[in-house]
Amino acid sequence: MTRFPELTAPEVARLPAGTLALLPIGAIEQHGPHLPVATDHLMAEAVAERAALAAAGSCDITLLPGLAYAKSNEHAWSPGTLWLSADTLFAVLDDLGRALSAGGVRRLAFLNAHGGNSALLGVALRELRAKYGLFTFLLHASLPADQGGSSPAAEQGMGVHGGLHETSALLHLRPDLVRMELATRSVPEHLGRYEHIGFGKAVAFGWLSDDFGTGNGVIGDPTGATAELGRRLVDGAVARAAAALRECARFHPGPPATPHSEETP
Amino acid sequence: MTRFPELTAPEVARLPAGTLALLPIGAIEQHGPHLPVATDHLMAEAVAERAALAAAGSCDITLLPGLAYAKSNEHAWSPGTLWLSADTLFAVLDDLGRALSAGGVRRLAFLNAHGGNSALLGVALRELRAKYGLFTFLLHASLPADQGGSSPAAEQGMGVHGGLHETSALLHLRPDLVRMELATRSVPEHLGRYEHIGFGKAVAFGWLSDDFGTGNGVIGDPTGATAELGRRLVDGAVARAAAALRECARFHPGPPATPHSEETP
Amino acid sequence: MTRFPELTAPEVARLPAGTLALLPIGAIEQHGPHLPVATDHLMAEAVAERAALAAAGSCDITLLPGLAYAKSNEHAWSPGTLWLSADTLFAVLDDLGRALSAGGVRRLAFLNAHGGNSALLGVALRELRAKYGLFTFLLHASLPADQGGSSPAAEQGMGVHGGLHETSALLHLRPDLVRMELATRSVPEHLGRYEHIGFGKAVAFGWLSDDFGTGNGVIGDPTGATAELGRRLVDGAVARAAAALRECARFHPGPPATPHSEETP
Amino acid sequence: MTRFPELTAPEVARLPAGTLALLPIGAIEQHGPHLPVATDHLMAEAVAERAALAAAGSCDITLLPGLAYAKSNEHAWSPGTLWLSADTLFAVLDDLGRALSAGGVRRLAFLNAHGGNSALLGVALRELRAKYGLFTFLLHASLPADQGGSSPAAEQGMGVHGGLHETSALLHLRPDLVRMELATRSVPEHLGRYEHIGFGKAVAFGWLSDDFGTGNGVIGDPTGATAELGRRLVDGAVARAAAALRECARFHPGPPATPHSEETP
Amino acid sequence: MTRFPELTAPEVARLPAGTLALLPIGAIEQHGPHLPVATDHLMAEAVAERAALAAAGSCDITLLPGLAYAKSNEHAWSPGTLWLSADTLFAVLDDLGRALSAGGVRRLAFLNAHGGNSALLGVALRELRAKYGLFTFLLHASLPADQGGSSPAAEQGMGVHGGLHETSALLHLRPDLVRMELATRSVPEHLGRYEHIGFGKAVAFGWLSDDFGTGNGVIGDPTGATAELGRRLVDGAVARAAAALRECARFHPGPPATPHSEETP
Amino acid sequence: MTRFPELTAPEVARLPAGTLALLPIGAIEQHGPHLPVATDHLMAEAVAERAALAAAGSCDITLLPGLAYAKSNEHAWSPGTLWLSADTLFAVLDDLGRALSAGGVRRLAFLNAHGGNSALLGVALRELRAKYGLFTFLLHASLPADQGGSSPAAEQGMGVHGGLHETSALLHLRPDLVRMELATRSVPEHLGRYEHIGFGKAVAFGWLSDDFGTGNGVIGDPTGATAELGRRLVDGAVARAAAALRECARFHPGPPATPHSEETP
Repeated sequence: MTRFPELTAPEVARLPAGTLALLPIGAIEQHGPHLPVATDHLMAEAVAERAALAAAGSCDITLLPGLAYAKSNEHAWSPGTLWLSADTLFAVLDDLGRALSAGGVRRLAFLNAHGGNSALLGVALRELRAKYGLFTFLLHASLPADQGGSSPAAEQGMGVHGGLHETSALLHLRPDLVRMELATRSVPEHLGRYEHIGFGKAVAFGWLSDDFGTGNGVIGDPTGATAELGRRLVDGAVARAAAALRECARFHPGPPATPHSEETP
Repeated sequence: MTRFPELTAPEVARLPAGTLALLPIGAIEQHGPHLPVATDHLMAEAVAERAALAAAGSCDITLLPGLAYAKSNEHAWSPGTLWLSADTLFAVLDDLGRALSAGGVRRLAFLNAHGGNSALLGVALRELRAKYGLFTFLLHASLPADQGGSSPAAEQGMGVHGGLHETSALLHLRPDLVRMELATRSVPEHLGRYEHIGFGKAVAFGWLSDDFGTGNGVIGDPTGATAELGRRLVDGAVARAAAALRECARFHPGPPATPHSEETP
Repeated sequence: MTRFPELTAPEVARLPAGTLALLPIGAIEQHGPHLPVATDHLMAEAVAERAALAAAGSCDITLLPGLAYAKSNEHAWSPGTLWLSADTLFAVLDDLGRALSAGGVRRLAFLNAHGGNSALLGVALRELRAKYGLFTFLLHASLPADQGGSSPAAEQGMGVHGGLHETSALLHLRPDLVRMELATRSVPEHLGRYEHIGFGKAVAFGWLSDDFGTGNGVIGDPTGATAELGRRLVDGAVARAAAALRECARFHPGPPATPHSEETP
Repeated sequence: MTRFPELTAPEVARLPAGTLALLPIGAIEQHGPHLPVATDHLMAEAVAERAALAAAGSCDITLLPGLAYAKSNEHAWSPGTLWLSADTLFAVLDDLGRALSAGGVRRLAFLNAHGGNSALLGVALRELRAKYGLFTFLLHASLPADQGGSSPAAEQGMGVHGGLHETSALLHLRPDLVRMELATRSVPEHLGRYEHIGFGKAVAFGWLSDDFGTGNGVIGDPTGATAELGRRLVDGAVARAAAALRECARFHPGPPATPHSEETP
Repeated sequence: MTRFPELTAPEVARLPAGTLALLPIGAIEQHGPHLPVATDHLMAEAVAERAALAAAGSCDITLLPGLAYAKSNEHAWSPGTLWLSADTLFAVLDDLGRALSAGGVRRLAFLNAHGGNSALLGVALRELRAKYGLFTFLLHASLPADQGGSSPAAEQGMGVHGGLHETSALLHLRPDLVRMELATRSVPEHLGRYEHIGFGKAVAFGWLSDDFGTGNGVIGDPTGATAELGRRLVDGAVARAAAALRECARFHPGPPATPHSEETP
Repeated sequence: MTRFPELTAPEVARLPAGTLALLPIGAIEQHGPHLPVATDHLMAEAVAERAALAAAGSCDITLLPGLAYAKSNEHAWSPGTLWLSADTLFAVLDDLGRALSAGGVRRLAFLNAHGGNSALLGVALRELRAKYGLFTFLLHASLPADQGGSSPAAEQGMGVHGGLHETSALLHLRPDLVRMELATRSVPEHLGRYEHIGFGKAVAFGWLSDDFGTGNGVIGDPTGATAELGRRLVDGAVARAAAALRECARFHPGPPATPHSEETP
């Protein structure tokens, strides 16, 4: 694994064909009274770096400087949230895709740690493939409960922001930044009365994090969080990401019989 | 259920508070040699209209003119594909959200029938909520296999475009437009060798429909399609959508104790 | 005449060289208390389809899905008006022009039924010609009185919105949607005191439909409307459009001696 | 009449309520081998200044610095054409409308001397009315033959660029810049075979000035141009513009009974 | 020296290789109670024309129509300021760069007379070099005190707007437009208490011209202005610009040994 | 000094009025064969952090996550350069300014370490002041020779990229990333023949780093670089930045007599 920012330009030019560029994407946004605003940024950086290291033995990966600022307008109501508009974040990703491609990179994986980025990154995957010929991939540091991730019983499937998992992960990664004494349960249980609409249900809906009347910006129950659980979650995320990265580095959508080179994806 | 285009302006102004506006969104894009380019547009219109009628008894719904043209750049390589860029489709949705909101509408549901629109609509849900205060929802006419929908064994989970389900639905809705004699199996089975990356797998990837070497733009196996299967699929989609629409028309994210009116979402 | 949405992609690819694509463009906007908001949309679709059928014997035409939503900001003050900004509508037309051109189409005619679109479409004609090499044309379903169309004496040349002609046309096309009992004369006669400025006069001016103090959004006198007049108007519009379409399908701006093919406009 | 650029800021602030701002708009574009690229710019400036002076006795007009560069992409193929894109020219007009409105101006008239600007200015009229509350007007220095202007027999209604009228006007205004020895007849007579499509005919079409095979960028017949005809044309244009400006300075779209002030257009 | 607007298109095409296009850029903005809003526009035009004439004997220069309207949002609070947004002015410059390059011009110099444009023009230099291959240059009619220019003692280095130099220059160029009886000293002396932040100091800061509490929009001391000083300043500016233009017309960034032609900068 | 990303949202809300937010801005771009592509990013981060710590005793500063990617299109020709377009970087800065202001921050300082960003940041200073009411400041980690910085004799004033100073600074900050054995002198001495045009001369010019024929992307002479010189340069930069930051935290442009609060800049 190489760290892209530490390379010289000629070293970038000499990266092995097929090298996978890995871009961590987090957020700077309110995470309730008990977690730092960089929670998602820290998570993205930690998982990306560890997964890249873990995968590096069997494939070529170069780790890009991560994007701390991303799309967090669901938290725009709160101080501490520094967000890019959808248009701006698309433009940033487009610019990076163009420059990477111009420099000879053919594979780009996003490692995302903020649920509010997921749909936009889903759009960007195809745009960068179509515009620059890049093979693009979207990995998640940890899936929030509303995007297919698990959520413990105490959260009723609604641990999507500052809840058990995220708080545990931070207790593992940066315990100095967690104020557990301020962690309180903020689960919008009243959403349970809807069958179709809700986090991870069949009908997605547009929500802001102050829509639910919970008051403190948390959606979930961080009170049971532990560093040990966090360690297991982070280790699991790293292991999954590392396995995925290995596959990203060799993936080609065409049939095996098709003769193709890395040079012309 | 009212048909928005048939109303006069004063009738629009008198729509009951809380009326749900329903916007069908399809696509005009290549669907292989056996299906018309309007396949998704026809599906969106059919399911939206039928679901709105089915739900109308218990809630207020107004059916908007659908968007035939949407985001189909994965099929841009083929004649017959008429696509809007991501920026343009965002702008269209933003304009409609603004105008609906200015006219007193407070609830907007997208009924989408094209998988290539899903991520973008996922972004738009929040944008319209944040910018115009609308309650927004995303329903699917039928989920493609790469977005949580089922896919029969013959398609190995890859029936995402012009396959068994879509072809069956068209045989039910518009049999005159289906050329079953040209339907052939085009399943990129080689994708099966990837564990993490693939349609509906953990790692999403950016793909174009000519990436897989199948030659004719189909990704799936339409050969077993029947009108009877199509009827069951469409009826099921309509029933699910109708149930969801009823919920959309009464959904509020805040706690029950919170006094709130439709006027101030 | 072919209906573009009903074609398969290979059929689009096999359209005869020189086929003219016809795009109906209407509006969803307030039309006073007696006409539906889709008045212009219905008119555009009806005239386009009938003219395409009438012309089809002598030339190749393919009828595109029409644009229901267009530029109606002069009516933005009223519920029922769903409008695209000028930027958005330009973007939609640009995207469609690009995609049609990429798919081998060389001729595109707009059939417009909303006066508020005319200037913008006038700009788009040249943009699509210059950017994509398309031969472009602008036809009107019926010219409003302020764009060269006739206006009966009772309207003093000001029957530009919801007046005698438009109401009659709707009585012919969709009598079920017309509320004649709510039709009232709303002619801003005071504009007659201006010699240079006014509908169809030498000096164009920027107006919104609530500028004139008429109160109900109508500019004209619908009270004398009849289905029979509507029939004559629509038939006339169709005949004129059909004749024009035949010419659009064979038009080339270069001199006859110039050898040119449809492939390189 | 005041010259806006010569006023101090406090003098601008003290302009009488209802003062009409007049913006000349021309073009810098090829005008064939015999006319300077500033032909339209010179015409716009000359007519605007003379008309403003002529009208000034009976109304308040302030003459703005004109726009030399405008939308000329129909001539983009030729050196000498310096053109703004449609988006850019819209942005310039929007910015000026905003700033004028912020500074207390309520009326804005465009005096246009380039046919290629007309449709775009037609769009801008409404945009500035809707966004900034300005009363907006569009005057023409002289109407080209394809926009309702007359065209002598020798030009068969096609004297739209560098023809008899424009050349005569320049012979009157700036004879030192006209190279009559290079003026040749360039009338695309073959367009006469079309009944519906053509300059000033019922069906507008998208054209570039090198579409017609005339070779030198002229569309018309300048060979008979004289300074005396130019004088009559310019004098007539000035007289018509002056009369129109007087009306623009007192125009209000509302009914006379409506009490309204300049402060709240 | 040629005046671009007076050339015919073929004459533009025949301009000598390496001809330098010169674009004056000013502003229309408040300049206090004693100077016209066109002060910077007049200065840009005067210096550009005189310098081009002075330099013309030894190099090929073509003088473009100047931009009267530019970026003046620091004065947006005042009537009389007509400003383009940063985006709009970038777009104008980009369009002109593209069109000049398409027409065969390879060298473009901005002659700027408004300090508020300087940073933006500094960005544009590189954009036009990178996008269109133009050699681009930025000259100043006279440097304001906050951009390296001198400022007399009475102004304490703060004569940046409507002060001694600018007022003197106008007294020389257009004495009829100067109201010396309204000129008052408006020097924000309190800025002197900052060591690092201030006009021309190490730390640039974002300021609006009504930030300083001086009340009348002036930042400087015009009371000692004289036409004679103005003459010397303008003559000096012209001489410096002429010398610089001569160099711009022969400048090439590559090493002398490199064989290069004007055709491929 | 607080580190913004480590704060919780309530802590951000409780930042003292007048707190200065500090945004480091670097670049990821080719820096010749001997320096890493993150050179400017590392410099911006190091100087910002140290200066913030040094200044913190006497004022309130919060250190934002820095921008690694910025405007580097002068190096777009080289692998390793990952650059944002001018539009994108403006959008990022605009979004951050908006969010900071919405969250109660009133002062924002950019600490820039890449010369290619300077002009754009100069524009942004005013935009953010005007749009969001922020007090904005631009500090430089170290001024390049073409922006007022010093340059040793061996570089003839042209040490603008990868030269003596930058290389020395990196030898101090990250010696493990410097490949001194690959450092070679690349001074475009031929620019010395121009009197007016050149790095830091009176006439700025648009340049790309491959314009000068030096071959390796360096503009300067890194061969004499030492860690000790780097230490002195960095220490000096930190001291100057710390002093400036203290002033930024108390700066107000209005006169002392004016009663003003931090709440209403």
